[in-house]
Amino acid sequence: MLAAPTVASANADVEKNIANPRNWAVQAGDMFNQRYSQLKQINKGNVGKMQVAWTFSTGVLRGHEGSPLVIDGTMYLHSPFPNKVFALDLETQKIKWKYEPKQDTAVIAQMCCDTVNRGLAYAEGKVFLQQADSTLVALDANTGKVIWSVKNGDPKVGAVNTNAPHVFKDKVITGISGGEWGVRGFLAAYDINTGRQVWKAYSVGPDAEMLMDPEKTMTWADGGLKPVGKDSSLKTWQGDQWKTGGGTTWGWYSYDKATNMVYYGTGNPSTWNPAQRPGDNKWSMTIFARDLDTGVAKWAYQMTPYDEWDFDGINEMILADIPVKGKQTKALVHFDRNGFAYTMDRVTGALLVAEKYDPTVNWATHVDMRTGRPQVVKQYSTAQNGPDVNTKGICPAALGTKDQQPASFDPNTKLFYVPTNHVCMDYEPFKVEYTAGQPYVGATLSMYPTPNSHGGMGNYITWDAGTGKIVQSKPEKFSVWSGALNTAGGLSCYGTLEGYLKCVDANDISKELFRFKTPSGIIGNVFTYEHKGKQYMGVFSGIGGWAGIGMAAGLEKANDGLGAVGGYRELSQYTELGGSLTVFALPN
Amino acid sequence: MLAAPTVASANADVEKNIANPRNWAVQAGDMFNQRYSQLKQINKGNVGKMQVAWTFSTGVLRGHEGSPLVIDGTMYLHSPFPNKVFALDLETQKIKWKYEPKQDTAVIAQMCCDTVNRGLAYAEGKVFLQQADSTLVALDANTGKVIWSVKNGDPKVGAVNTNAPHVFKDKVITGISGGEWGVRGFLAAYDINTGRQVWKAYSVGPDAEMLMDPEKTMTWADGGLKPVGKDSSLKTWQGDQWKTGGGTTWGWYSYDKATNMVYYGTGNPSTWNPAQRPGDNKWSMTIFARDLDTGVAKWAYQMTPYDEWDFDGINEMILADIPVKGKQTKALVHFDRNGFAYTMDRVTGALLVAEKYDPTVNWATHVDMRTGRPQVVKQYSTAQNGPDVNTKGICPAALGTKDQQPASFDPNTKLFYVPTNHVCMDYEPFKVEYTAGQPYVGATLSMYPTPNSHGGMGNYITWDAGTGKIVQSKPEKFSVWSGALNTAGGLSCYGTLEGYLKCVDANDISKELFRFKTPSGIIGNVFTYEHKGKQYMGVFSGIGGWAGIGMAAGLEKANDGLGAVGGYRELSQYTELGGSLTVFALPN
Ligand SMILES: O=C(O)c1cc(C(=O)O)c2c(n1)C(=O)C(=O)c1cc(C(=O)O)[nH]c1-2
Ligand SMILES: O=C(O)c1cc(C(=O)O)c2c(n1)C(=O)C(=O)c1cc(C(=O)O)[nH]c1-2
Repeated sequence: MLAAPTVASANADVEKNIANPRNWAVQAGDMFNQRYSQLKQINKGNVGKMQVAWTFSTGVLRGHEGSPLVIDGTMYLHSPFPNKVFALDLETQKIKWKYEPKQDTAVIAQMCCDTVNRGLAYAEGKVFLQQADSTLVALDANTGKVIWSVKNGDPKVGAVNTNAPHVFKDKVITGISGGEWGVRGFLAAYDINTGRQVWKAYSVGPDAEMLMDPEKTMTWADGGLKPVGKDSSLKTWQGDQWKTGGGTTWGWYSYDKATNMVYYGTGNPSTWNPAQRPGDNKWSMTIFARDLDTGVAKWAYQMTPYDEWDFDGINEMILADIPVKGKQTKALVHFDRNGFAYTMDRVTGALLVAEKYDPTVNWATHVDMRTGRPQVVKQYSTAQNGPDVNTKGICPAALGTKDQQPASFDPNTKLFYVPTNHVCMDYEPFKVEYTAGQPYVGATLSMYPTPNSHGGMGNYITWDAGTGKIVQSKPEKFSVWSGALNTAGGLSCYGTLEGYLKCVDANDISKELFRFKTPSGIIGNVFTYEHKGKQYMGVFSGIGGWAGIGMAAGLEKANDGLGAVGGYRELSQYTELGGSLTVFALPN
Repeated sequence: MLAAPTVASANADVEKNIANPRNWAVQAGDMFNQRYSQLKQINKGNVGKMQVAWTFSTGVLRGHEGSPLVIDGTMYLHSPFPNKVFALDLETQKIKWKYEPKQDTAVIAQMCCDTVNRGLAYAEGKVFLQQADSTLVALDANTGKVIWSVKNGDPKVGAVNTNAPHVFKDKVITGISGGEWGVRGFLAAYDINTGRQVWKAYSVGPDAEMLMDPEKTMTWADGGLKPVGKDSSLKTWQGDQWKTGGGTTWGWYSYDKATNMVYYGTGNPSTWNPAQRPGDNKWSMTIFARDLDTGVAKWAYQMTPYDEWDFDGINEMILADIPVKGKQTKALVHFDRNGFAYTMDRVTGALLVAEKYDPTVNWATHVDMRTGRPQVVKQYSTAQNGPDVNTKGICPAALGTKDQQPASFDPNTKLFYVPTNHVCMDYEPFKVEYTAGQPYVGATLSMYPTPNSHGGMGNYITWDAGTGKIVQSKPEKFSVWSGALNTAGGLSCYGTLEGYLKCVDANDISKELFRFKTPSGIIGNVFTYEHKGKQYMGVFSGIGGWAGIGMAAGLEKANDGLGAVGGYRELSQYTELGGSLTVFALPN
């Protein structure tokens, strides 16, 4: 008998849940990371009448990132450390069950940028939680009881977690944090039924540990795709510096069942003092496409070789089929911390577009499209200026033109809606020794609104990824640290650090159609669902994250919080800590 | 020249602020503690369309009691420990200033019933805050800067504070907590301009320290008002037990400028083991009327002589001019923890009505109207049953048929709207030694919903204080621990421990016209104000207080939290911690 042809399936249950727009089945609404909903009961015409339907406090202060999931009438909510999970009956908002892990509070001090957690995954009756202490657990979705639990990293050396786990096929994919502790990053896949580790792919180090195929893993070089060759990472590090070399993986992952590849980015090389780690520090700051089944890298593209600014490359990869320079393309679009937006061919890894998505980005003039390398401006090179020299006026700041806050793609307008930062910095690297479990940063930063601009620290923009151009830019007082949502109702919605949920016209984002002040500043992602014929929209509020670290951790000195405290000090005139969900709907 | 006739004035500025119904100038809306607003834009006909206008998180978990104040476009909010104060510009909700005292966290463990604070007072450009550590401060209402600060008690011995300060005339009146630490209660008056103590009147002890006039301080006895006589307190205590005798004063105070008297109640005698303190333990459990200028007691009435159940008498005194048994009366109406509602002549102190406001109250058959004493039922006398005997089935439980949650009076219906508890208890006293700064409780309690009733733990009732009769009773799943508000719009509104704000028809409280689920359980008081022609209604949510102490303090054992943990365990299926304000209005 002939083998049945392999039918590409991402995971039948998850696909079914996603296909039903009444659910919010995965963090990004779909596996392409598009953050787009088919629902349109709430639309351009009536969103102005939208009102709060109900609210729910999580009982946790500090930053609330991610969003709840909604599956068939139950909402699953998570919280920052201590990472509580609630299952709410949407009919009554009654708590069906609650899971609260017992975690060592020592982990709090090991988290660079607040005790955030970016949310849950759901598949086949199981809820997956990636705890801060790096324990990955599968909970019974009906009872909250632990089905299995596995240790993903060692918090004693700073290997902690903030990322959402993602289920693709029969695997739950998770990453690791700790780039500021010298943690060597990796992506790992676990069997959703047993928790058994299926593969683990480091970001830096020997080919075998990175699951790099010297012949078959491709990268963009010299105007085309070339095999990476042997020891492509090791060759770019001095000695065994790669062992504490960073490249963590705390972002959002995407998956295309047609290519069977998982797409994600790696973070900064450790330390922040570039003088200590000469070389390109591959494959930190890299977009990876890996075979989901084996973890082997299909292609890799390093955006910021030899990082000198902490421009982690972890921001989400949005998969979209769009015309790029006139040609319909299976694209991957990525808004990097470094201020460039990249459009890649997601099948091959070819570099198609790389343009600034904030015109004030100044550390590089452009990306050389042949080599794929950014052309660094000497004045802003903290490596060339050297340790103990304060390099001033670098744009963007370390937290990038965009950080973890995910963008959305609207298939109707074919545009990307990008919550951005509009912040610059001074950066002074200094020598630092590696000690396991201790911060390994080595730079003093200060941040401030982009000079000679509108005075604010953020913009909400629309972006044409086919041409690499900003279409519209809406200034915001603070960085927009919240994830965007677009809907078939013609809306684009996002939260602000002051605490407003805003919805604008997707065709003209200068038209603000709705705003509401939630209890605290918003760094969560907007989501939507339908229950009993009524569309709801929701968002976590709870100020924190890196931008809000001063408030979240009670820091006062301008340079504290890796430089964010001074820059965002004014936030405390607008909002206070407090984690809660606000759910909106049209009036009855 | 002749002296100008003394014009009775409560405080011209406070009176002016109260007279303007657009403000919420004092905690109870007025000095009579009526919690009634003239505003009627939101009314019976349209309250169903009311929606959330904006929200504000305080950044503090644990129980949020009291309410903000609104004065001329600025809102002043307080929080539980650490007792932050925020001034919000109502135009923008921007934080004008924030005050956060530095208090020793040791005070947290000295607070019996959660780290609550019942709110601020405002007068003549000053905001008054009574901190948990007993420091009373006056803040500049424009800047939040401390104008003066004075120590009101010693937290080292358990003398802490939760009450709202109250401004009457040129004095700010405050009390003290610590009945469960053997603290001797007192009321004190401070000069609003300097913080100088003007008088201090103990609840128990020598006449001079109590500001009792043996000849002129009257009490109800033998069917009439009699002078209390010499040593009226000392005679009812053994030896110097009065020195650790309790009678704390953590409730709401009221003031009538016509009588120039301040009205308030005193709490339980310490310890909870009655065997250790034979005697009437006067003047614990007492309604006091004191001359505002001198502090001298005009009259006193002890409701629960020789307390055996922790039926603190501190609940608010509501002043209202109503017909009592057919005769128009300057009445004082008080819903006591012990389950009896008292109507007194507030001028003379005559006892007019004393009836059960929950028919299931069983520890006393009735109040003897001649002696004014409750007739205790032997079966429920924890003193007669003695130490180490568990007296079962006492109704109400120690937290009373009503606790701190204030009732409202509606001048239109002439009825009182009373948030009540419907809870019974088992009570087992045991011997305890007094050690300064240590709990001095001496009883083990368990609490449960009133048996053979509707299964819930609360009722919202209307009460005719002239006849002593329940008019209507609306069952609630949990105790109604939130303060009521009535408005000229024909509404009566209150919060529930699950987190709902509810508004009912003041003429028929079985008609629920509005409900909304706020982020957390409600133990705050509903308030209303007008800004730029629009009426707003608001309430703090933030589960806690004695009823919510299990959640607030993370206690698990049924008998913990003085017996409340077991009784209210189910609460955690409905809500989570989190302090925020939700403000409502009609749609634009
Ligand atoms: O290098 C790392 O491992 C790491 C981890 C995290 C994290 O896990 O939250 C952040 C960062 N880096 C980082 O550079 C950064 O800008 C950042 C922002 C945030 C946030 O949640 O607001 N987390 C992180
Ligand atoms: O005896 C005291 O000094 C004292 C203080 C307090 C307080 O200050 O909150 C309460 C009580 N007792 C008390 O008996 C009680 O029922 C109570 C409830 C609450 C509350 O805020 O929910 N506080 C208190």
